[in-house]
Amino acid sequence: MPNTKFLLAEDRIPTTWYNVIPDLPGGLPPMLHPGTKEPITEADLEPLFPAELIAQEFSTDREVDIPGAVIDIYRQWRPAPLIRARRLEQALDTPARIYFKYEGVSPAGSHKPNTAVPQAYYNKRAGVERLITETGAGQWGSSLALACSYFGLACEVYMVKVSYQQKPYRRGLMETFGASVTASPSELTAAGRAALAADPDSTGSLGLAISEAVEVAAASGGSAKYALGSVLNHVLMHQTIIGQEALLQMELADDYPDIVIGAAGGGSNFGGLALPFLREQLGGGRSVRAIAVEPSSCPTMTKGGYEYDFGDTAGLTPLTKMHTLGHDFVPPGIHAGGLRYHGMAPIISALKEADLLEARAVPQTACFEAGVTFARNEGIVPAPESTHAVRAAIDEALKAKEEGAERSILFTLSGHGHFDMQAYIDYFAGKLQD
Amino acid sequence: MPNTKFLLAEDRIPTTWYNVIPDLPGGLPPMLHPGTKEPITEADLEPLFPAELIAQEFSTDREVDIPGAVIDIYRQWRPAPLIRARRLEQALDTPARIYFKYEGVSPAGSHKPNTAVPQAYYNKRAGVERLITETGAGQWGSSLALACSYFGLACEVYMVKVSYQQKPYRRGLMETFGASVTASPSELTAAGRAALAADPDSTGSLGLAISEAVEVAAASGGSAKYALGSVLNHVLMHQTIIGQEALLQMELADDYPDIVIGAAGGGSNFGGLALPFLREQLGGGRSVRAIAVEPSSCPTMTKGGYEYDFGDTAGLTPLTKMHTLGHDFVPPGIHAGGLRYHGMAPIISALKEADLLEARAVPQTACFEAGVTFARNEGIVPAPESTHAVRAAIDEALKAKEEGAERSILFTLSGHGHFDMQAYIDYFAGKLQD
Repeated sequence: MPNTKFLLAEDRIPTTWYNVIPDLPGGLPPMLHPGTKEPITEADLEPLFPAELIAQEFSTDREVDIPGAVIDIYRQWRPAPLIRARRLEQALDTPARIYFKYEGVSPAGSHKPNTAVPQAYYNKRAGVERLITETGAGQWGSSLALACSYFGLACEVYMVKVSYQQKPYRRGLMETFGASVTASPSELTAAGRAALAADPDSTGSLGLAISEAVEVAAASGGSAKYALGSVLNHVLMHQTIIGQEALLQMELADDYPDIVIGAAGGGSNFGGLALPFLREQLGGGRSVRAIAVEPSSCPTMTKGGYEYDFGDTAGLTPLTKMHTLGHDFVPPGIHAGGLRYHGMAPIISALKEADLLEARAVPQTACFEAGVTFARNEGIVPAPESTHAVRAAIDEALKAKEEGAERSILFTLSGHGHFDMQAYIDYFAGKLQD
Repeated sequence: MPNTKFLLAEDRIPTTWYNVIPDLPGGLPPMLHPGTKEPITEADLEPLFPAELIAQEFSTDREVDIPGAVIDIYRQWRPAPLIRARRLEQALDTPARIYFKYEGVSPAGSHKPNTAVPQAYYNKRAGVERLITETGAGQWGSSLALACSYFGLACEVYMVKVSYQQKPYRRGLMETFGASVTASPSELTAAGRAALAADPDSTGSLGLAISEAVEVAAASGGSAKYALGSVLNHVLMHQTIIGQEALLQMELADDYPDIVIGAAGGGSNFGGLALPFLREQLGGGRSVRAIAVEPSSCPTMTKGGYEYDFGDTAGLTPLTKMHTLGHDFVPPGIHAGGLRYHGMAPIISALKEADLLEARAVPQTACFEAGVTFARNEGIVPAPESTHAVRAAIDEALKAKEEGAERSILFTLSGHGHFDMQAYIDYFAGKLQD
């Protein structure tokens, strides 16, 4: 049985992003200033972001125009394919129909350029010269490096030291796109120096790398700004291009998902797929089970509290109300580096509190097992992060089989694993722990 | 200036491969039996290949049907995009129009699945259980591993030892697709044992790995066959899907190439693009300059003789008339492992002798320089092999600028470099030699 690929004509790329804020039951609790603990203003964020992104962060418009220059770049790989995984269905012998939206077709190999490109664009328009960011696994860093190379911006990436050492290829990719990459903690920032003073052998964390990047941008006097690859409202909004395309493609498939699934680290990949489907439901259309999948070793939604916390280790960022394991939580060194974050996007956290999504935690060996099954049937090796969505999709398909229920399942395959093969090698060697 | 992507509707995937043999001026000299030195027969090849592939190897039909089951799989990534590289044009400030046909969208990341899939299909149909092959850089090995996983065949890959050690990720990819990978030379074959006896520290060569794979297949009693990823007539024929699609896409672009360019190791990537355009020319249509680019450290066409030689080191394969540096030639360890082969496809060699193509040799540092320029403008990191085509395309675009000539240039970007980032890291560190 051949697979079926649902392509969308290029002129059907959505021209607006969907902003869920006005549709959130109860709205979103405000971000608080890290010093005063009062709700922050747009002016408070100016040292970090350009005005147009700050406006998007606070926007209550349901739809926000995608600039033509951004669509021109999206067109290099978008609309991303939606594929019915018939070979996987057959291998599982399930009555479920399994679809995946494949975001690994982007030049950086993941969904991250969906937001990196507009972020670079708005910064360029604001006269910014350098973008500073952090990266864990390297998907975000390489996406921002790519976007900066498109717009002629300098790009500086603070890469969590353990990844810097273990993933030289990701670093090589960022450098090939022209970015400079620094292992975090570094001697270049007060936050980095403090961490090294406390522990000279520190291998770093995402929260600490954020502190370093924020510090550098804030001290630049305006020539440099900061960029974040997940969590924030405007980032999730940019990612809704995924779900909006998927809605049109499910229509081409003459089907509608009963279940939508995404891996959730900061929440932008899951939100990108799920929010446009939840919009339909909230607007009185068909309802959908939305499942956000996180690693059982970093169980932000399934074990964390819903409270105000910092986004970084040093406490430089605003406080946001979210599911969090605490900003000093250091997750174990699992291979899905993109899911090793102590917090969750405020939007996703609010949806979870409103019972509009299900959170599920899965252990990493079960995820790699699913990733290998997927690769052998569909030919694509999933990124370690994406294997979490694959695991949940397979589990739902097996459950449908058990129940003898026809069911339509859609998940995002957020990226390929070409830069993560060591994880698969370790999996085959039996070296992975849960 | 945005790029322009010329997609082709899925139902326009060509349904036949183009066989250039009947159009070759003077035809093709026969292959000779390694023992008798007489022209080989179809029966001589039976220990190595299934009947349908042997028939294709000898076919004089101009068009050969692509099986529906193969097209079903092609559709996962085909038609491959043809992209006008406007950002690169702008960076070079050239009046030339530069197009590239991007084959890195396949699940294995290169053009190789175009032939791996039909080879696996015909073997499966013939009741074969295992496919044995060799790989240098790993592009071919991972493509055959992928194709075998689609058709439920076992796959055994002899990987040149230096690559086996330097490219654990490529090996990991093959194993993820379910293949078993052995470093060559190995103790498993007479050819391998002889090589190790002569030099216990041998790091292997492509010619030697071919000897091992051929030996295993020939001794299997029919349960296993051998598969080759380039050089042979049927392989080049399978790759003509590239050029046939490109012809249709150039029509969509309302343009026609003055120059077509491809990197040439065994010749299948270059031939895949160029042969359908040469067909137009030979049939009285528009003429085209076809440029085959090889590494200056393995200058098969530009320095090698045109004579009968073995395809492997041990002399187990038939003799073919081709440009060759001698079957015992061991190329230096350049990073474009896929171009480190002593010979050239007989079809490409014959076209060279008939002055229907130009051969050009380029040094590797100039290729990586071109690869980085391409990556920073187009967002795709080329495989080391593909940088040879990029180099020649940029040089032709700069020449057009010098001459103030509008000119249309088309090249194949045969694969991405995600598994070859060490080469870029070495290039940035100034460690590469020409």
